[in-house]
Formats: sequence, C-alpha cells, structure tokens
Amino acid sequence: MELMIPLKPYGQKPMYEQIYQYMKEEIRTGSLGQGVRLPSTRVLAENLKVSRSTTQMAYDQLVAEGYIEAVPHRGYFVLGLEELVETETEIQGEFIQESGEDEKEVGIDFSPRGIDLTHFPYNTWRKVTRNTLVEDKKEMFLTGSPQGEPALREAIKGYLHSARGVNCQAEQIIIGAGSEYLLMLLYQILGPGQTIAMENPTYKQAYRVFESLGYQILPVEMDRYGMEVKGLEESGADVAYVMPSHQHPMGIVMPVNRRQELLQWAGQRKDRYLIEDDYDSEFRYRGKPIPALQGLDKAGKVIYMGTFSQSIAPAIRVGYMVLPQPLLSVYQQRLGFYASTVSRIDQNILYQFLTEGYYERHLNRMRAIYKGKHDTLLARLRGLEEDFQIHGEYAGLHVLLTSKKGLPERWLVEEAGKAGVRVYGLSGYYIHQHHNNRPSTVILGYAKLSEEQIEEGARRLKEAWHRTT
Amino acid sequence: MELMIPLKPYGQKPMYEQIYQYMKEEIRTGSLGQGVRLPSTRVLAENLKVSRSTTQMAYDQLVAEGYIEAVPHRGYFVLGLEELVETETEIQGEFIQESGEDEKEVGIDFSPRGIDLTHFPYNTWRKVTRNTLVEDKKEMFLTGSPQGEPALREAIKGYLHSARGVNCQAEQIIIGAGSEYLLMLLYQILGPGQTIAMENPTYKQAYRVFESLGYQILPVEMDRYGMEVKGLEESGADVAYVMPSHQHPMGIVMPVNRRQELLQWAGQRKDRYLIEDDYDSEFRYRGKPIPALQGLDKAGKVIYMGTFSQSIAPAIRVGYMVLPQPLLSVYQQRLGFYASTVSRIDQNILYQFLTEGYYERHLNRMRAIYKGKHDTLLARLRGLEEDFQIHGEYAGLHVLLTSKKGLPERWLVEEAGKAGVRVYGLSGYYIHQHHNNRPSTVILGYAKLSEEQIEEGARRLKEAWHRTT
Repeated sequence: MELMIPLKPYGQKPMYEQIYQYMKEEIRTGSLGQGVRLPSTRVLAENLKVSRSTTQMAYDQLVAEGYIEAVPHRGYFVLGLEELVETETEIQGEFIQESGEDEKEVGIDFSPRGIDLTHFPYNTWRKVTRNTLVEDKKEMFLTGSPQGEPALREAIKGYLHSARGVNCQAEQIIIGAGSEYLLMLLYQILGPGQTIAMENPTYKQAYRVFESLGYQILPVEMDRYGMEVKGLEESGADVAYVMPSHQHPMGIVMPVNRRQELLQWAGQRKDRYLIEDDYDSEFRYRGKPIPALQGLDKAGKVIYMGTFSQSIAPAIRVGYMVLPQPLLSVYQQRLGFYASTVSRIDQNILYQFLTEGYYERHLNRMRAIYKGKHDTLLARLRGLEEDFQIHGEYAGLHVLLTSKKGLPERWLVEEAGKAGVRVYGLSGYYIHQHHNNRPSTVILGYAKLSEEQIEEGARRLKEAWHRTT
Repeated sequence: MELMIPLKPYGQKPMYEQIYQYMKEEIRTGSLGQGVRLPSTRVLAENLKVSRSTTQMAYDQLVAEGYIEAVPHRGYFVLGLEELVETETEIQGEFIQESGEDEKEVGIDFSPRGIDLTHFPYNTWRKVTRNTLVEDKKEMFLTGSPQGEPALREAIKGYLHSARGVNCQAEQIIIGAGSEYLLMLLYQILGPGQTIAMENPTYKQAYRVFESLGYQILPVEMDRYGMEVKGLEESGADVAYVMPSHQHPMGIVMPVNRRQELLQWAGQRKDRYLIEDDYDSEFRYRGKPIPALQGLDKAGKVIYMGTFSQSIAPAIRVGYMVLPQPLLSVYQQRLGFYASTVSRIDQNILYQFLTEGYYERHLNRMRAIYKGKHDTLLARLRGLEEDFQIHGEYAGLHVLLTSKKGLPERWLVEEAGKAGVRVYGLSGYYIHQHHNNRPSTVILGYAKLSEEQIEEGARRLKEAWHRTT
C-alpha cells in the first residue's frame, strides 16, 4: 500500500509530526482500519522523500500512543479503535505543568518538574534586592560584561570548585538566561553540522533544543553505569550530552570508570566534546557527592552546565556554562558581541545571595526538606516492593518504579489517575520509542508536594495498583 | 602569484578572518611588499576552496584598514607600510564601548552607542521593584508563560498601538532577554537555509547575529528612501531586515510608498517576510511620528521588533517581537517548550513601570533632553556646512556628517582624535566594503554627552577639520 501524505517541508510542524498527525487522523476516521499493515519506515521514507529517522519518529509516536503496534519481523499494524485510550494529554501535560499559572486540580500530582517554593527565603531576597538598588550603584543600569559580571563569575567559580570539584577560571564561565539560551550559544560556538549523542531516555527539554536547532541527534543506550561507550563510539557522534551526577530521568549516578571512558572517547578526536549537565547535583541524601566529570578532565573536553532554577527558583533565569579553553577562544573571538541576557541588577542580587552565605543556608535547608519528602515517599511505598523495583533514589527530586509483573505503563498511569493521583510514564522520555526496551516504569516526583500529600498519594497508589494485582 | 593560506575550517575564527589575519601579517612583516598585486577574489577563492564572498570579505576588511587598495579594472594592490595607520582599535572599540566599565578617557566621545542614564528614574524603579516583591506575590518566583507575562504583553500591545500604530493581539507578542535572543528564536521559527537581505550600511549587531547563526546575508543598496526594492528582488532573499522608522546608521525615514513596495515584495511569495527593527522610534524631534510598517501590513508579513534597552536602560534586558499569525503558529507548535528568558519579577517591574504612567513620563522627559542635545549639536556644528552635509537629524540619537570636499574618513577620525574627540567612520557599518560608494562620512552620537561636552566637542571638531581645509 502507498500512503499519499501531503507534507509541507518548511514552516508549520516538523515533518515527522505531519506524518504522525495525518496517520492518526486516518486511523481515527477509520480510513486505516484495524489490522492494516503499514509500509515499512524505509519504504514510506522513500515515497515521501524524507529521511528514515523522520518516518521512524512518526511511527514511534503512533506506537507510544497506541494507534499502531510493532510486530517483530512482520512490521507495523493498525490497532483497533476500541483499544485506544487518549494519552495525548499526558504528553502535552509536560508543558502545561511547567507554567505555574495553569495548575489544574489533578488531586495529587507527582510531577517530576518544578520545585518546592514554600520555603523560598522571600525576605532575604527582598533585602538583597534592596541592597542592590541603592543610590550609589547606578552602574547597575549599564550594560555589563558579555560573559556576565566578573564578581558573580568568581563566586560561581568558588562554589563550583568547593561543592562540585569543577576546576576553572572565572573567565571560562558564561552566565546566561537559562540553560536553553546557553545551548543556543553553544550551537554557535560548536558550529552547525555537529552530531549529538544523548542518553536514552534523556532530558527531553535539552533534546527539543538540539532538535530545534537542527542538530542530528543520536540516541545511545545506557547500562546500569550510564551511557554505553561502545554505543557512543558506534554512533559516530561529535558531541555527547550526559548527566553523570544524576541521569534524568533514570537517576543513574555514573561511576568514575565510566567517566574516564567517556573522557578517553572525547580525547580521541580534536573536535569531540562532552556536555555535562549538572542540573540537580545539589540534592543528594546519602553518601558523598561525586565530583563533576569536568574535574577529571585534563584535556579540555568538558562543557559544564549548571543552573540556579532548581536550587533557588525557576523565576531566577540564571544558568551558566564553563567552556574548555579551545571553545572559550572561539566564543571570545566570534561571539563576544552578544550582550549578556541577564540584567546586571539580577546578577548582583544573585552575587550577594551567593557570597553572603544565604545560598549555602538555603541549600542546606532545602536538602533537609527534600530528604524528608524523599524518606516519607520511600517509607510509604513500602509494601509495593513485591510488585515494583524502586530506583533512582538517594538523589534528585524523583524516584522510579518499575513493574516486576509487566503491568503496562499506561495502565499504571490510568489506574493512578482514577484514584486522583498523577504519575508519569517513563516512555515520554525516550528519543525513539523503539529503543524503549525497559520494563514498564513510572516516575514519581515529590519536590512540589507536602509530606502529607506524599503520604496520601502513596496510599492511593498502593490501593489503585493492588486492586488488580 | 598563489597564496598558500593555512585555513582551519571549523572552530576558531571565521574563514574570512583567518585570510584577513594571514594577509595582514604578511603585509606587516613585508612578505607582501608595497605594490604587489594580489590574486583576484575569484582566483583566491578557488585556490583556497572557499566561497567568493569569504575572500571578498577578507579583502574588504584589508581595504577598510588601509593595508591594500582596490584599483578599478586592475585589481587589489598592497599599500606601502608608511601609509598605514593602526585603525584596528577603532573597529574593536565598538565592543569596548558597549561595556560600561571600560570607559577609557578619550576626551569627548561622540559614541553612537549607549544612552543618557544620568536622568534615569532610579527612585521610581526602586519603588516599583519594592512593590513587586511584596509578600503576597510569591507566584513571581514560579516559571511564567513562555511568551512572557500576559499582563505585560497587554501593556506592550496597548503602547505599540497608540504610539507606533502596530496592530496586534497580546498573544502575538513574545518577550525575550534582548533582541539578539529573539533573533535566535526567530531563526528556529523561520528554519535554516533562509537568505536575509540587509540594508547596506546596516546595524552591525543584527548582522553579526545572522552571520553567527549561519544565514546567508545579502546586502541591498539604499537610495534616499531606504532599501531599493529592485535590488531586494534581484537579491533573491527570503527575508528582509529593515529599519523603516530610522535607519541605522543612515538615519533615513522610509516614506510610505517605499513601505508599500516592500510589503508588495513580501506578499509575492508565501515564505517572504519583513523584519522591522523599530529600535529607537521613541526619539523623534520634529514632525509627526510615522507609524510602523507593521501597521500597514494586511497580509501577515511583518515581524516587528522593539526593545526597552534604548528607551529605559541597557541593563533592562527586555525586548519583544510581534509575530504574524503564520509564524506564531510555528512558534507555538514547535517552540512553545522554551521557557521565557526574562524573570517574572523583572517582567512585573516593567509592567508596573509601563502601566502606572512612569514610562510615558520618562519618555517625554528623555525626548526633551535628547532634543536639547540634538539642537545644541546642530547649532554648534553651524559653520561646518560649507564643508559637510549634515543629515540623519530630527530623530534618533546621532547625526551624520558627509564631507563635501572628499576628505578621507580616516583623516577626519584621526584629526578629531588628535583634538581629543572621538567620532566614528561610516565604513564600519558596511557589510562589504566594496559596496561603500558613499562619500566619506562620520557619525556623531550625542546621547551620552552633556550639552557642555557637546559644545566643546563641536568647537574642537571645527578647529581640527578647518585647520587644513
């Protein structure tokens, strides 16, 4: 069978989404009936004159949403409509959740996004802001250094060295309005045409940025130690984006051996680099924090990225990256014309917050609060261990539950939903669904919930999932 | 002669700069002696396997700095070393000036960059900031809408409508941390592979952003009404970047007929767009302000861009763009995942500043102050009219002086420099130097100078330039 799909190559939606939307509509309206075998991704790609990864992504999305199924060695088949459940909201929900104003009442939401802001030191922040806006600091209203205020970079350097084992000079640090902006800058430093390896599953927000910038993205599998180096080598990637301190979403902490292997991989070619996203390294509840990959790097191969969105507040639009010397030269020679995206006023508020001890105090407090929530959740999930393997704990702001009995992810999410509890399927974090060979897993974030909500949520989950197990 | 130039295709400096640097060094060390004829840009491009525009840019830069000269119908020749004057600092000075902390004592600096901050309403800003950080506004610390706070967008919409004749809905506005960031976003909306037409000379900062993002840039000549539509058509560009309200640096105000022609050009193809950069439309000292090009657009062809950097302060890292409907759909479908780069707190401060009447008051005050400086400068330049044509006045924050007697730009800049006055050559604003067929012109910005400095500066200029005329 040949599918004639009208595609608009530019503007509008990405190609894979156009294919996905078209086929979904055809299935919904019955034009593609149950049991119909679809053309292979290769044949469809040839017919539509698109790349095979485009058709693969469209099919992956259709599989993920239950419109079609992949039968090994036979191909893709349309599923019956009665088997369909709307899961779209779940996927789009990721965006909705992000905007604080759109907080729908879903009962208890174990969202892996967002942080606890009930303990934000509002008074301190106000005080520090007032101090910044005193009469004799009019220079605050001028444009500052393109890389960010030197004093703030010194403070970040000091913090990164003592807390994360990062070795750098302040001149290697670039401050920007969030890590997404910094990735846009990095795109211009690395140049176009790069291929980026990403852990699979991965942090979807970074994936979307890379995709939107037109990078070719190569998903690389993980074993229990993180990104597999053999897979990375075979991928042919120039740059690998990794989260060694606490992989998102899997929660894997990469051991030193694997880190060394990654550095060796990067050292083998001049234009290979590692992007280390250390997004939530602040929160670790057990054992000694593992120093950043950057600290092991002797050859200038690691681009280290961090943010204050998680540790202070999402509204503080300040992230930073530490560039190795070769990339710093490129930045300074070619991109020094970009003004900083963070106002000097905001940078100075943050500077005071860091250097006057408020940040450390705030971190210690939040670590204790999150540890309390983490411990409560794990304690209340006791009893589920027979049916679930619980992992990703001891660090970060979420845990993962993997069904030992092979209960489908969608069932787990839906049963929870019926009990007024929202949990998140791991499948949403995969780059390509056909790489999803892990047993069915759901994610429970606890940062935004109170301990009471966590207790109640865990109770309802046990009830919902036990009902039929 | 064949030049063997070792080029590094990726990382490091852009290719044209590598060629330029190499040749400059060869000339400086005498390896390329006076009178040597260089290979044509075409031949050099073929030898080095680069595009011809790359070699052209390298030669342009060498011509601009006086290392070589272009002899019509004969080619490029190396100039004698004794004729060389270091003008590099002048070009790099553009960056240095931008950072407020690096203000070298150059006597009186008629910099076209920067604004008057001595009259910034610091007390009002502090008050508004305090109001934003009151106890009951904790939601300020959450992530807000990706496009920016709805209330702020409403306020900007209202301002744009009444002050600039812009017709839009608040949902078409995207707020971002400066116009450079917004251009990065626009790059992802328009998609790669676009060609951009720019007025020549143009706003170099926008040029650098487009270049850094990998766009092909097509310089289009201007007549006295602005960008020539015939040239635009012939360029084959998809998108034209224009400054109709007050072209930077030429100061041309585009008449309505030309605007209509541009809109017609854009209307002829589905994927054609106009970027209207309305960077300093707030400051106009004579006649009625001309409404924005966007207001004439019935077909959804204009991307309107504005900023508060000029009208409030460079430190307020807030710009905005108004997307026409087709591009808004692309943004919302593909790029809605990007969080806003401006903190909610800063957006709310700005919102209060706009809606409580402070902005209007501030603008009126600054308009009067800038008009005073403008009038003083023009009055004090009287007596130079015999030798110079003065243009670009009545709007913006700079004027242009074109030599009627053909005095070289470099001589004008140098003689001024000897008298402790810094003026800026127009040639620095050209995309390609070989397009620079205008008579020698210098730019005098007056925003940052006091009226006394302006008087003294004008006096010194007259003395310096009259000395030998």
